[in-house]
Amino acid sequence: MITRLSRLFLRTLRDDPADADVPSHKLLVRAGYVRRVAPGVYSWLPLGLRVLRRVEDVVRQEMDVMGAQEISLPALLPRDPYETTNRWTEYGDALFRLQDRKGADYLLGPTHEELFALTVKGEYNSYKDLPVILYQIQTKYRDEERPRAGILRGREFIMKDSYSFDLDEDGLKASYDAHREAYQRIFDRLRVKYVIVAATSGAMGGSASEEFLADSPVGEDTYVRCVESGYAANVEAVITPAPAPLPLEGQPEAVVHDTPDTPTIATLVDWANSAGIAEQFGRPVTAADTLKNVMVKLRHPDGKSEIVGIGVPGDREVDDKRLGAAVEPAEVELLTEADFAANPFLVKGYIGPKALQANGVRYLVDPRVGTGTSWITGADAKGKHVVGLVAGRDFTPDGTIEAAEVRDGDPSPDGRGPLVASRGIEIGHIFQLGQKYTNAFDVDVLGENGKPVRLTMGSYGIGVSRMVAVIAEQQHDDKGLRWPAEIAPYDVHVVIANKDDAARAGAEEVVAGLHAHGLDVLFDDRTASPGVKFKDAELLGMPLILVVGRGWADGKVELRDRFTGESEELPADSAVATVVSRVRG
Amino acid sequence: MITRLSRLFLRTLRDDPADADVPSHKLLVRAGYVRRVAPGVYSWLPLGLRVLRRVEDVVRQEMDVMGAQEISLPALLPRDPYETTNRWTEYGDALFRLQDRKGADYLLGPTHEELFALTVKGEYNSYKDLPVILYQIQTKYRDEERPRAGILRGREFIMKDSYSFDLDEDGLKASYDAHREAYQRIFDRLRVKYVIVAATSGAMGGSASEEFLADSPVGEDTYVRCVESGYAANVEAVITPAPAPLPLEGQPEAVVHDTPDTPTIATLVDWANSAGIAEQFGRPVTAADTLKNVMVKLRHPDGKSEIVGIGVPGDREVDDKRLGAAVEPAEVELLTEADFAANPFLVKGYIGPKALQANGVRYLVDPRVGTGTSWITGADAKGKHVVGLVAGRDFTPDGTIEAAEVRDGDPSPDGRGPLVASRGIEIGHIFQLGQKYTNAFDVDVLGENGKPVRLTMGSYGIGVSRMVAVIAEQQHDDKGLRWPAEIAPYDVHVVIANKDDAARAGAEEVVAGLHAHGLDVLFDDRTASPGVKFKDAELLGMPLILVVGRGWADGKVELRDRFTGESEELPADSAVATVVSRVRG
Repeated sequence: MITRLSRLFLRTLRDDPADADVPSHKLLVRAGYVRRVAPGVYSWLPLGLRVLRRVEDVVRQEMDVMGAQEISLPALLPRDPYETTNRWTEYGDALFRLQDRKGADYLLGPTHEELFALTVKGEYNSYKDLPVILYQIQTKYRDEERPRAGILRGREFIMKDSYSFDLDEDGLKASYDAHREAYQRIFDRLRVKYVIVAATSGAMGGSASEEFLADSPVGEDTYVRCVESGYAANVEAVITPAPAPLPLEGQPEAVVHDTPDTPTIATLVDWANSAGIAEQFGRPVTAADTLKNVMVKLRHPDGKSEIVGIGVPGDREVDDKRLGAAVEPAEVELLTEADFAANPFLVKGYIGPKALQANGVRYLVDPRVGTGTSWITGADAKGKHVVGLVAGRDFTPDGTIEAAEVRDGDPSPDGRGPLVASRGIEIGHIFQLGQKYTNAFDVDVLGENGKPVRLTMGSYGIGVSRMVAVIAEQQHDDKGLRWPAEIAPYDVHVVIANKDDAARAGAEEVVAGLHAHGLDVLFDDRTASPGVKFKDAELLGMPLILVVGRGWADGKVELRDRFTGESEELPADSAVATVVSRVRG
Repeated sequence: MITRLSRLFLRTLRDDPADADVPSHKLLVRAGYVRRVAPGVYSWLPLGLRVLRRVEDVVRQEMDVMGAQEISLPALLPRDPYETTNRWTEYGDALFRLQDRKGADYLLGPTHEELFALTVKGEYNSYKDLPVILYQIQTKYRDEERPRAGILRGREFIMKDSYSFDLDEDGLKASYDAHREAYQRIFDRLRVKYVIVAATSGAMGGSASEEFLADSPVGEDTYVRCVESGYAANVEAVITPAPAPLPLEGQPEAVVHDTPDTPTIATLVDWANSAGIAEQFGRPVTAADTLKNVMVKLRHPDGKSEIVGIGVPGDREVDDKRLGAAVEPAEVELLTEADFAANPFLVKGYIGPKALQANGVRYLVDPRVGTGTSWITGADAKGKHVVGLVAGRDFTPDGTIEAAEVRDGDPSPDGRGPLVASRGIEIGHIFQLGQKYTNAFDVDVLGENGKPVRLTMGSYGIGVSRMVAVIAEQQHDDKGLRWPAEIAPYDVHVVIANKDDAARAGAEEVVAGLHAHGLDVLFDDRTASPGVKFKDAELLGMPLILVVGRGWADGKVELRDRFTGESEELPADSAVATVVSRVRG
């Protein structure tokens, strides 16, 4: 295919768009790849659409190789199935809901577990039909609170979502592993630098789950990794190593102290260091010696709310994301003044485990609050704290919770070194869902023994339109975009850099030659100045730029590599062959 | 590609689905091509999706050949642009509307004139950039009152919509003609039997417009054609030849008669034939001698309503579709009892032109009510009619209107023969929109003379998903689907029709050979009986069926042509070559 820039529907912009602060967003707009229509809603112009389609093709090829079958479900979906799984409600404001002319409720699909489960139920009824993996590459909708960075986090976007259906856990594991490998092949082909991290399953339910995060300083996802062991996990999924239990015997008795005006951890530590506790400990008291009790209200899916106490070492904050993931599907709300008024045993600034447990409030603690650990914490009365309150002796938590912040230097769960924090962009997610959805819709087949078998399900996604932004983000330089050959809109960008007729005719000849070899050529045949054309070529980002200019008279052309920045002079008569071998090589 | 039926996500059904009454709907469901998710909302299973993609490819290729450029706009669109053109309101219940989490109004795009006009305005600003034709192949949404016949009339469907932008009318005409030719090539390649008919422009505004209608007895669109001249038009677009004016001189005076109990045309004709009017005419009086005045209320886009009288020969009904098209963008409503009470000069059953004109009611007549024609019509008093009321002498209409029904045998507007009615399915529509949308958004470029030029626009659509149903409708037989080679999901369907290992191994060998030649093969490797397999092969509809059965031992295979039904024995060792040449030939 030959596309002439003189006819291409394209206008490049010299200035960054005002609403963009991320490089990929700035460049994709400046290079005329995408245009904003509404917040998080974008049009794909010709060059952008070509990249998008090539990314889709890579994803499709690898899904086909793994034996997945492509189908296409609607985006406009009836409420009923999502009501059955409660996601009609659970999705909250992120779901686009609408009604048809008869008042029936519909939604725009954010993900399709329900419909795929129903689709398989509709077609298959024997164990002989299984396993099956189905996928689609389809437009999806999520009413993001903060659509961001152009197509990086849109409200209308394209996803590859696939769903596996197996007879048992081993089958699910195999389908999951096949996806994991296919995703690695896909991201490798797309030249994306990424890491696979253990993940919580989010609103999807289920057990094992991993995320593929592209390395990026503009990523919204924070994850941690252990350089020594290679362990990597989403912050929400980090498991805190629990300390070995300490002996209860021989520990000093808990003593309540008057601690006037110590409603914060800082003031409490100051008091302890000035009131002789440091001497008693034989070392300075730090925030890590205190036990902070944070009260939250959980809104459960059935609508009921529950006040819960969360105990974390005083040197750590509760991390909202980790807390949210830990309590799913419940949602976290803050306590109101009315809640405190209704529960007078909650003495702000001085809350301790004892009053919570005495009043039947569920009390969950950080795993560091293990049996035998001793704490300075609230004594449930204004101006009073207790020193030497021992877990397992003076109070017994109702369980542990992974809600405390994770910090650089925290030990890796595998015990092989410290964790360091990194940022990434979620590009893929694989889940072993189990039977959540097949239970919801009774998706059974007749087993080999004649008895019904409930299927077990996996769900797997790749952000296809996001991938275009991610590649732009990872590959660009200060001059513009740079597309890996596999997904570049065109194989080569040919520039006429001289006005004389011979150079123009030569360029036409070279372009025709490249096309005859099956290459896709973007041909800058405009009358603009060479400077403008070179700037545009760098901005648009084809991997190879072939310049036909004043050297043509001497039988020379110039080939530039957009990635290395290197330029070489080629004999005009072998230019086509050289470019073809570079592209094919 | 080789797809084994033993692994294909497919279940064929022996029985027609209960909700289907159209052959394509029954067969596409029975053959497992599509599945219903909600009224007018369907999933595409593997075989259906392959046909759909191949139809898309044909459309895309021909659009590219004509120089159109593919882009992709969102389906989720903000209200503002549609408010500007008033289509937010005009679309009525057919528009899916929704709000985002912030309460902003959105719609699901039914067609994209507004957004394409804005897209071109955003990129282009010089006459040098024009003309440009942009297109997309995209999912569209219309909340049809009566979704019907599976994917034939869906609420979520795929369209190719394109938009041309030109500097002047000649340019628009050229873009329109280019589309007309591309559409002919597309439908010819898809083997669709169709007719091009003159059409009204519907809610789109603008002037010249034609529809491509596929021949089909299940079509919802009625059109008429003149066998002699080839003239064809949508019923809404048929122009009634106006008779030459008749001399007013020498016609008898109009006489008012007592005509008790004649509120209908039938009773009026009976009266006329028994009261001596027939003698006066020298022939029996027929309904065609009477002038029926139908009152309607027009609701104009500005919200104002207007009562209008429509005069048609008494032997014809007013056709709601023609009336609706004739008064657009106004909408037709019925008069209420309150309207009659408020306008006592409207004497039901006896309404005549005189009272309408005396009371300032706009009076539009069928073109047959030409100057000098004489009528029996109401005399605006209960039980009274007037005989001999002459148009142009006793009353002067405010204009003509194409609202009377069109009937088989009516003269063609080109005067070359009678019209006959036919039914068809709209598969394409081309419009010369003019400046309706470019005016709405001030889409100007700088002209050659330095002055702004307002662009002129065309809009063109093909129902891509509908096309799958149309082809199924036109090509099926009583055994199942039959796909033309260009869009068949697979080139050939290979059936193992014998259980012995040699035949199975032979079939594997043949399939591998076909695949090596680049053919797409659907391979029925199941252990089912030959009868079941043959029935499925006929139902699924690949154009060629290759049977490897008991003849394999004698070096023979059987090739069946799904279209002709013919079967031939081939030597096994040349089977691959024969099939390849059939497919390629």
